[in-house]
Amino acid sequence: MQAVIFHGPHDFRLESINEPKLESPSDAILRVTHTTICGSDLHLWDGGLPAAEQGFAVGHEFVGIIEQVGEAVTTVGPGDRALVSCTIGCGSCSRCRRGLHSGCSVTTAGGTRSNIFGFSSAFPGGQAEVVRIPFADSNVFQIPDGVSDEQALFLTDILPTANMATEFAEVAPGDHVVVFGCGPVGSLVQQLAFIRGAAVVIAVDLDEARLAHARQLGCETIHPEKENVLERILQITDGEGAASVIEAVGRTELVSQAALYLRPGGVIAVAGVIIANVDLPWALFLMKNLSLRGGLVNPQRHVPQLMPLIESGRLDPAQLVTHRMPLSEAIAGYELFAERRDGVLKVVLEP
Amino acid sequence: MQAVIFHGPHDFRLESINEPKLESPSDAILRVTHTTICGSDLHLWDGGLPAAEQGFAVGHEFVGIIEQVGEAVTTVGPGDRALVSCTIGCGSCSRCRRGLHSGCSVTTAGGTRSNIFGFSSAFPGGQAEVVRIPFADSNVFQIPDGVSDEQALFLTDILPTANMATEFAEVAPGDHVVVFGCGPVGSLVQQLAFIRGAAVVIAVDLDEARLAHARQLGCETIHPEKENVLERILQITDGEGAASVIEAVGRTELVSQAALYLRPGGVIAVAGVIIANVDLPWALFLMKNLSLRGGLVNPQRHVPQLMPLIESGRLDPAQLVTHRMPLSEAIAGYELFAERRDGVLKVVLEP
Amino acid sequence: MQAVIFHGPHDFRLESINEPKLESPSDAILRVTHTTICGSDLHLWDGGLPAAEQGFAVGHEFVGIIEQVGEAVTTVGPGDRALVSCTIGCGSCSRCRRGLHSGCSVTTAGGTRSNIFGFSSAFPGGQAEVVRIPFADSNVFQIPDGVSDEQALFLTDILPTANMATEFAEVAPGDHVVVFGCGPVGSLVQQLAFIRGAAVVIAVDLDEARLAHARQLGCETIHPEKENVLERILQITDGEGAASVIEAVGRTELVSQAALYLRPGGVIAVAGVIIANVDLPWALFLMKNLSLRGGLVNPQRHVPQLMPLIESGRLDPAQLVTHRMPLSEAIAGYELFAERRDGVLKVVLEP
Amino acid sequence: MQAVIFHGPHDFRLESINEPKLESPSDAILRVTHTTICGSDLHLWDGGLPAAEQGFAVGHEFVGIIEQVGEAVTTVGPGDRALVSCTIGCGSCSRCRRGLHSGCSVTTAGGTRSNIFGFSSAFPGGQAEVVRIPFADSNVFQIPDGVSDEQALFLTDILPTANMATEFAEVAPGDHVVVFGCGPVGSLVQQLAFIRGAAVVIAVDLDEARLAHARQLGCETIHPEKENVLERILQITDGEGAASVIEAVGRTELVSQAALYLRPGGVIAVAGVIIANVDLPWALFLMKNLSLRGGLVNPQRHVPQLMPLIESGRLDPAQLVTHRMPLSEAIAGYELFAERRDGVLKVVLEP
Repeated sequence: MQAVIFHGPHDFRLESINEPKLESPSDAILRVTHTTICGSDLHLWDGGLPAAEQGFAVGHEFVGIIEQVGEAVTTVGPGDRALVSCTIGCGSCSRCRRGLHSGCSVTTAGGTRSNIFGFSSAFPGGQAEVVRIPFADSNVFQIPDGVSDEQALFLTDILPTANMATEFAEVAPGDHVVVFGCGPVGSLVQQLAFIRGAAVVIAVDLDEARLAHARQLGCETIHPEKENVLERILQITDGEGAASVIEAVGRTELVSQAALYLRPGGVIAVAGVIIANVDLPWALFLMKNLSLRGGLVNPQRHVPQLMPLIESGRLDPAQLVTHRMPLSEAIAGYELFAERRDGVLKVVLEP
Repeated sequence: MQAVIFHGPHDFRLESINEPKLESPSDAILRVTHTTICGSDLHLWDGGLPAAEQGFAVGHEFVGIIEQVGEAVTTVGPGDRALVSCTIGCGSCSRCRRGLHSGCSVTTAGGTRSNIFGFSSAFPGGQAEVVRIPFADSNVFQIPDGVSDEQALFLTDILPTANMATEFAEVAPGDHVVVFGCGPVGSLVQQLAFIRGAAVVIAVDLDEARLAHARQLGCETIHPEKENVLERILQITDGEGAASVIEAVGRTELVSQAALYLRPGGVIAVAGVIIANVDLPWALFLMKNLSLRGGLVNPQRHVPQLMPLIESGRLDPAQLVTHRMPLSEAIAGYELFAERRDGVLKVVLEP
Repeated sequence: MQAVIFHGPHDFRLESINEPKLESPSDAILRVTHTTICGSDLHLWDGGLPAAEQGFAVGHEFVGIIEQVGEAVTTVGPGDRALVSCTIGCGSCSRCRRGLHSGCSVTTAGGTRSNIFGFSSAFPGGQAEVVRIPFADSNVFQIPDGVSDEQALFLTDILPTANMATEFAEVAPGDHVVVFGCGPVGSLVQQLAFIRGAAVVIAVDLDEARLAHARQLGCETIHPEKENVLERILQITDGEGAASVIEAVGRTELVSQAALYLRPGGVIAVAGVIIANVDLPWALFLMKNLSLRGGLVNPQRHVPQLMPLIESGRLDPAQLVTHRMPLSEAIAGYELFAERRDGVLKVVLEP
Repeated sequence: MQAVIFHGPHDFRLESINEPKLESPSDAILRVTHTTICGSDLHLWDGGLPAAEQGFAVGHEFVGIIEQVGEAVTTVGPGDRALVSCTIGCGSCSRCRRGLHSGCSVTTAGGTRSNIFGFSSAFPGGQAEVVRIPFADSNVFQIPDGVSDEQALFLTDILPTANMATEFAEVAPGDHVVVFGCGPVGSLVQQLAFIRGAAVVIAVDLDEARLAHARQLGCETIHPEKENVLERILQITDGEGAASVIEAVGRTELVSQAALYLRPGGVIAVAGVIIANVDLPWALFLMKNLSLRGGLVNPQRHVPQLMPLIESGRLDPAQLVTHRMPLSEAIAGYELFAERRDGVLKVVLEP
């Protein structure tokens, strides 16, 4: 089969490799119909996130058709349309039981490796024709008739990531919510903040086109090079500050600044991927009783909540798809996405 | 001044009485601009709720302009547009501190009297030109510029009641929510269920016009004399049952039935006013791990959450106003409302 | 092997049957070391709970040693000391994912049968030498070194049941909590209420010896035939009423009465097994904003929370064991337990 | 009257000043019976916290007898034994309504001044014979008969602070909780962690006498200069890490380290007073899904929960009182406390 294979930064190659087989009675084999490139794939692409090895298939956002399941699998069967969580949990360890599959003791081998598809040879990724899914009953979800493959693709990672952030932020009816970033994750955060009852969502970004899109969703917008962010937030919130700030860009300085924009009792939630340390202005935390939360996504917890919102038509994440191409053109897709050309938001690859 | 005075069932009279005066440094005097008739006023009107005395002004939903405040009042001043909570709390007793102003130890005189405006001479009501508001800092809220008097009128009782019910029901993103009743409270419950993220709201009523209105809000609808309620709910929820059922009619048998329609872990919330005992099918509670909640509203807790939703335009309760008339025609207003003529939903009276 | 076999009310027989075998890669085979008789076993014994068939092994509270596991099992292996949840969940369906294994779509076969061990031939019980455990990764927990088999026995059902009730009741630091019943479940509820921070636990029972035991745990006690329950509760709570009432007897009239004893905002939680309808004084729910909750236990959710409390010595449920006998004397054990002889609280049977 | 007057770092003087009078109908006048020196008073004493003026009475932890109340006060009257919250809230602004009296818009004059007693001439403190209490209904609580003045003294600040920290940390039954610091606040945090159901509390301190006291309370203890903190925590928690870490010392580096000691999903709560920035290892927050919270205390929210725990005897904070002296010896008290002589934990001053 064909797959996008990691050989180093800026060196991804479309290659032919053997199809995976069932290895355990709890495995499933999925034939991929749609896969997409995630912002965190770019960290592999540009070397920001160093990989310890090479030669594995990349990609952790993919959906398809179940081809085969092990004898112990009860929730899906051959022929089912299915989506797969990007983080792989055994479903039974103490962490998975608490909804923290991203920290699964079994699949991270006690914390010694990543348990996300497509970051090592332990769990080859889904920018490929066929993928083996360990612990299928924990990590695979059937796609209902009313939901398209492209919509379901967003449930594998970034829609749950956005939902996690609004949950971390405890977005509640009537809230004023600030969202840093209007990229794919930021846009979904904005939509989910409204779904959770936010009265006002304030989107901050440097890209005018993305700000225009946020306004179409009903957001107030701020361009930080053209306006004073603090002044505008205080003006919109009647001098009170926001109930929460959600960081959906991935920059430490935005986390540091967020405390300024909050009302007493406010919350900062980080959806962006940040590895560096954060310099936290604790005096503001002390005086205003603030909270800060972040982490990796666990789609296993979020899919059951988000699927009905797509099914009922309240939420259509597939509107973020700007480009579609065959898997054979994946390398061009990476370049397009890395360079943010053509107003790209989300590139779907079809094997 | 003129006021609607209670003399017995079907015997409300427009009479001239003395204007109230400040009695305590924590009082405020409000000149009423808009007041409305509530479903619970009808219980006085039709005798369903017996009053121990007569001669008091009725009405507990009213807004206006502050005319005077006592020396201890800090949150409003003369000239402010203001709304008043229907239940009166001292704001300082252990119950008010827990957000249960409806059970205020001080204003209920230790549980020996009602602390709602317009049900006794202890707290004369707001279908009048002027009202004295005890504990103004606890019970009065300024109306912001972007909110009309008519919109604010809904914050005195029924919008908080609807919000309390969705809170009791723990409505969460992705939920399927059943709402019994499409009257004023039911309609607001439906809108707030969507604001809290419900994927699907299923409205049940016997009135086709009201069901049509619910469909305009985006609800699925069921007419229980034309369709089998259980079958339809199971069909809409894929056989699973609803996450919550909200009773917004006020009939014991609907509370009894609700358990049938719920999925495991479901919740029944009662917004309707019910005095009689409820016959509860406990076997369903046992097998499905259900919860049941009800109570009187505490607008004091809900106004800060709901006001920004009106201000931002996400919610416009004033769309439920079907009739407007001067206070001098209040008796005709009662008759219209009691007989449900002319598609009446909400009658606004203007002194 | 030997097992206690159901043939009808008052007709349980110790018989020899074949040992169960692995049937699925997710099964485990457990050799029972300790099992006990539960109050709900008595419902089978006395006919209160009719069984549709006969010939199956009874018993749903048991621990032992894992003898064999299917190829898909990851959390336990041969030789492990292990306890088993009384309700059996697949661990992967939408209900199990929400922590409601008692309503598991798979093991209840879509709601058409009980998924508790020992109530039908679908899931033969643990008053036997060997038991087959379906979906072992979901339903089996290793017993740590510091916890005895007898202590672990309580984690299979009644300690989680008691914990569920205190969770339903939202017991919080500083609360006054009323517990109806001082039997095994009631006593554990009392201990867990203190562990959750209750300031005062008020135990109500008709049995003086059991009340004395509650006093040893630090409870206030009320004998309802000797004292007026309402008066005493109001006296202890300074006229306010309790924050919660937990029913641990299983009588509908106690649920009906509970609303009387609550302060505004209070909660009724039902731990007892009740099948009949409950007559609910809704006027009290309306005036006091009350909640009511009940259901079947899901030890899968509670074991991870309760195990450390036993391990650290804060909680020792094995103190409730009053009688120990070999499995061969099980029938005598049933008679003793059914007749409440010799101050019996919990009878442990050892195969 | 006599009072301890601030003239600069290390320059507190016992002076005679005029007694305060009622200034508003919502004021109360309290005659102090017991007051105590808080760790944050030491920040004034040693200059760590610069004051903008001088000549005001210090002290924010005090109890006494109500001498006089304004006409609007309903919750206390002359002759009542009463305690006073250290932070002063109006009780009616949007922040006080959310339980954040420490951020009260009115008493902080829109965020331009401290609203704690004893830090400026705006709110003269309680190391004095008489104090004026603004907004008495919001800030004063009656002391029940079963609670001593010394016990009540802890409800004015540090017991609520400790409770806030355990609430921030979401301490739940079965948790392993790490507490940095065994001073007065740390010791109360340890006790409250047990009251909230912690299975194991791990106390960390450099003072052997304080560690011995923690062991008497049932804690595991670690001396960081004699043992490796991380290794010991992993050993005690079976390699999993703690559910929460509570900082009760006031050092930024402890907040930075805390993430290391947590299990996935863990929480860091800061009870200590920290003004400097915190360097946060975000990679750990990302990989382990952590939360961080801090802030100023609002005794108004905590007293109703804590009082019954003292009343029922579950908690006796007065055991932390090591020294008692007349107010006239206050300066000697400060020196003793600042130098940590004689095993001092808490010094009570009696006017």
